[in-house]
Amino acid sequence: MIEAPRLLYLDDLRIGQQFVSRSHVIDEEQIVKFAREFDPQPFHVDPDAAKRTLFGGLVASGWHTAALTMRLLVEGGVPIAGGMVGAGGEIRWPNPTRPGDTLRVHSEIVEVVPSRSRPDRGIVTIRIETRNQHADVVQLFVGKLVVPRRPEDSKGS
Amino acid sequence: MIEAPRLLYLDDLRIGQQFVSRSHVIDEEQIVKFAREFDPQPFHVDPDAAKRTLFGGLVASGWHTAALTMRLLVEGGVPIAGGMVGAGGEIRWPNPTRPGDTLRVHSEIVEVVPSRSRPDRGIVTIRIETRNQHADVVQLFVGKLVVPRRPEDSKGS
Repeated sequence: MIEAPRLLYLDDLRIGQQFVSRSHVIDEEQIVKFAREFDPQPFHVDPDAAKRTLFGGLVASGWHTAALTMRLLVEGGVPIAGGMVGAGGEIRWPNPTRPGDTLRVHSEIVEVVPSRSRPDRGIVTIRIETRNQHADVVQLFVGKLVVPRRPEDSKGS
Repeated sequence: MIEAPRLLYLDDLRIGQQFVSRSHVIDEEQIVKFAREFDPQPFHVDPDAAKRTLFGGLVASGWHTAALTMRLLVEGGVPIAGGMVGAGGEIRWPNPTRPGDTLRVHSEIVEVVPSRSRPDRGIVTIRIETRNQHADVVQLFVGKLVVPRRPEDSKGS
């Protein structure tokens, strides 16, 4: 059993703070199902045809890796109060995600900036690495999150 | 009936070239189904709870908008030879995607750079805007694609 993590407000976040999500095993069935709906290209939906592409075998859509990363983040990977509300960021897929990979998300706070115009919130820059069982980075996302300040009436509690 | 578009090689792409995808209508059922699997936050899965969030109602996960954008691109939105193989890019969601929205993807070639080390390919920078029926941009993705050169034996054909 994993204890539900305490939700973090802007006031709780520090540069260099790190988080690790639970893991998720991705298989061929998940890869093909996602890709049939959203990214129906041979290297994502057809294991045989995929062998003859530059990937040399079936790989997950980058957007599938992104969606799974989000699920791992939302399920306690980074326990931000108010949820993971992203304004955008930079995404890269340095290595493909393949069937049988075990994915885990490692995150680090890069910047914490209270809003000047909105005293109840701030913007946090976070570096989110999705790694497989070999510690290869399959996705790097550096993004900005909108994070609420701790409400006055809950300070010190 | 729509004619199958001719597949474009690096040699066919020019800065400023534009493409428009077919449209897709997103509804509440699609939004909730995707979010239950990948982004189970109240503003994506619970229409009532969503009213009390900063979005004021149900909105699609940004990763759902990204995945749908990919489908529209793959289905002829940008007919690149060899498929849409992305190395990454910058993504933003300037406006939320809401139930009932009609999405369409407008793309423009920003840069075309033949590879120095790999004479059979090049890197294309593309600006991909996903717009709703009001012409609001719900997603902006500026990314790099790996695009093959036209094979020697098919030149001039």
